[in-house]
Order: sequence, then structure tokens, then C-alpha cells
Amino acid sequence: MTQGATEDSIDRLRRQLALVVEADRLKRVLRRTVITDSSRHENSAEHSWHLALAAMTLAEHAAADVDVERVIRMVIVHDLVEIDAGDTFAYDTAANLGRVEREKLAADRLFGILPEEQGAAMRALWDEFEEGRTATARFAIALDRLQPLLLNDTANGGSWHTHGVTKSQVLRRMAPIEAAIPAAWPLVLEIVERNCALGHIAPG
Amino acid sequence: MTQGATEDSIDRLRRQLALVVEADRLKRVLRRTVITDSSRHENSAEHSWHLALAAMTLAEHAAADVDVERVIRMVIVHDLVEIDAGDTFAYDTAANLGRVEREKLAADRLFGILPEEQGAAMRALWDEFEEGRTATARFAIALDRLQPLLLNDTANGGSWHTHGVTKSQVLRRMAPIEAAIPAAWPLVLEIVERNCALGHIAPG
Repeated sequence: MTQGATEDSIDRLRRQLALVVEADRLKRVLRRTVITDSSRHENSAEHSWHLALAAMTLAEHAAADVDVERVIRMVIVHDLVEIDAGDTFAYDTAANLGRVEREKLAADRLFGILPEEQGAAMRALWDEFEEGRTATARFAIALDRLQPLLLNDTANGGSWHTHGVTKSQVLRRMAPIEAAIPAAWPLVLEIVERNCALGHIAPG
Repeated sequence: MTQGATEDSIDRLRRQLALVVEADRLKRVLRRTVITDSSRHENSAEHSWHLALAAMTLAEHAAADVDVERVIRMVIVHDLVEIDAGDTFAYDTAANLGRVEREKLAADRLFGILPEEQGAAMRALWDEFEEGRTATARFAIALDRLQPLLLNDTANGGSWHTHGVTKSQVLRRMAPIEAAIPAAWPLVLEIVERNCALGHIAPG
């Protein structure tokens, strides 16, 4: 290895470690969802871990053209932009205005910390998730809908109950699960019905 | 698909979702390490996410025989046993007595929630990490040492400072990084020296 290559390698490593340190801030971004014992709000870092574990666990229920390793990588990075852009509550229409622009600026800055081709590859994972056009992204998106459903169900309605979310809002939010994880759809409906009956999800 | 296969598939899915819900409890297991702004302790779920991101980011510095996708899966599950066994501070010799037995019982219970062959595969990931015999496990272990070093360095000494950890203890703890991520070793030494000079790491 030449001296130049060594310096380049050290520069790459410093940029990579800077991204790892910067990413720590995602642990301070709070979601509306509460953890299962209702003791506090969930943060976006632990949420991302939970999705990665769910991807590993539920992989066999994905369509044949889903790249599960890519799903795992995708969910690990899918919320990084929230470090700058914050978490936007799915059921808050007003807050969702401008979300896309805020998140794109955040992606420019955050993935730009990395060496260029590496930042572009990580950015491509995030873009793919946001666009939701591939089977891989649609499986990742379905996990991102299923996980808060499981938390809310365990936490006596959780953020549904606190924010007066209605059945039709929940069903619209959960819709991507039907095609991406068809085996889970009857269980999703069962959970929604039970939480409606318990008054955790509002009618309408 | 026969009716029997369908029932089996639903039973598998219910067990898998039960593991996902149970795993939420890892968000309540606190480590000694604080997050970078020192505002609170880190939990083991977000720590696991941070290692997965570090694995993706630092993959090019791993030895040729490291399976990076397996590293990512390994770090996602490596702390699940703490749901039952708790986190054991690396520098607390007394607390480490009995740790292995506690964690094995936890692994039996937690991975046992899954369908048998799937639980065995996830258990194998955990066993491989614990044993540290493969290059893949050694890279994962090195990340698990490097990440708290980066947090402590950013958080003005963090858990080193609070617990009076000495330079020789830190260097012993960081040693796996030298062989597994050799490119990072000079930076590790630089960070250790700086924190010694600042009084964040105790002499000796």
C-alpha cells in the first residue's frame, strides 16, 4: 500500500466514524409510539433496531423477489434523516407538509458525511424505501407499519388511544401489509377489531 | 397449500410476532454507557442498532473472510439475552460472575419462543458471537468495543470517567479491535491517549 492510499484510507475511516458518532443523535428523536410497558415514547434508533429484528424474524413471509439482507440494511438507515428533520406523526396531515423537502436536505447532509460512493449507496437505500417501488422496499414499509401496531396493541392502544386515531385511519395506514406480508393480514385485522372493541381505536 | 400447512404457517407467524413483541423489552435494559450528549444512559436496543449501522459503515475495513451480512444479523440479536439476564458492566468483575449461566438460560427461553429451526439459527448467531472464534464474530465483537469508545470520547469520558476506569482496563477491553479492524487501531490509541491527558481515563 502506498503512503497516498494509506492517507486516503485513514480519511475514509475518519469520515465513517464521524457518521457513526453523528448517528447517535437518532436516539434522541422521539416517536409518538410508546414502548410496550407504556413507560415512555419510543425513539427512532431503537425502532430501527426493532424493524431489523422483525425483518430477520418474518423473512419467510416475504414475496420471493424480496432481498432480505437489503431490507435489514434499509430499515437500519430509513430514519436517519430524522436527526435533522424530526419524526413526523403519520396521522398528522399538517406536519406532513414539507416533510419530503426537510428529509431530502437531511439526507444530503448526513449521507454526505461518508466517502462519496459509500454515501451514495446508503442514500440509494433510503431513496428506495421512500419511493416504495421495489418488493424489497414494500416489505420494509410493511414492517414499519406492523411494528407500531404490535406496540400499540400491547400498550393498551398506545398512540392510537392518546391521539384519537380512527379505525379507517389505522386501516389505511396498515394497508401496505396486505400485499407485502399477506400471511400477517388476518392477524392485523384481528388486532384492529379487538382494539376497536376495547375503545382503543375510535370509530369512523 | 393444504389446511394443515396454513395452520402451521399461522402458528409460526404467531410465535414470530410473540418474539418481536417480547424483544421490545430490550429497550428497557440500560447500559453504563451514556449517549453522546450525556443526557441519559444508552439502552441495549438502540446500542444494537448502532452496531448494525457501524457494521455497514465500516465493512471495508474487515478481514476478507468476514461475512458482513452475518455480522449485521449477529449484532442485532447479540444482546437479546439481556432481557432476562440484564446488562453486565464490562469493567465490573464481580457482576460478571455467573453472567454466562444467566445468559444461557435467557437464550433458551427467548430463542425458544420461535419455531424450532428458526430459534436454533438465531441462537447459533448468538453462540458464535459469544464464542468469538470466527472472523465474523471477531469483527462484531470489535464493533461492540469500538462503539462505546466513540460514545465515551464524545461524552467527555462518559462511563470511563464516572466509574474511574483505568487506561490499562480500557486498552485490555479495546484489544480485539487491533486484529479485527486494524485500520482503526491507531485512532483508538489516539482517543485513549487524549482521554488520559484530559483526565477522563484514570492512570494505571
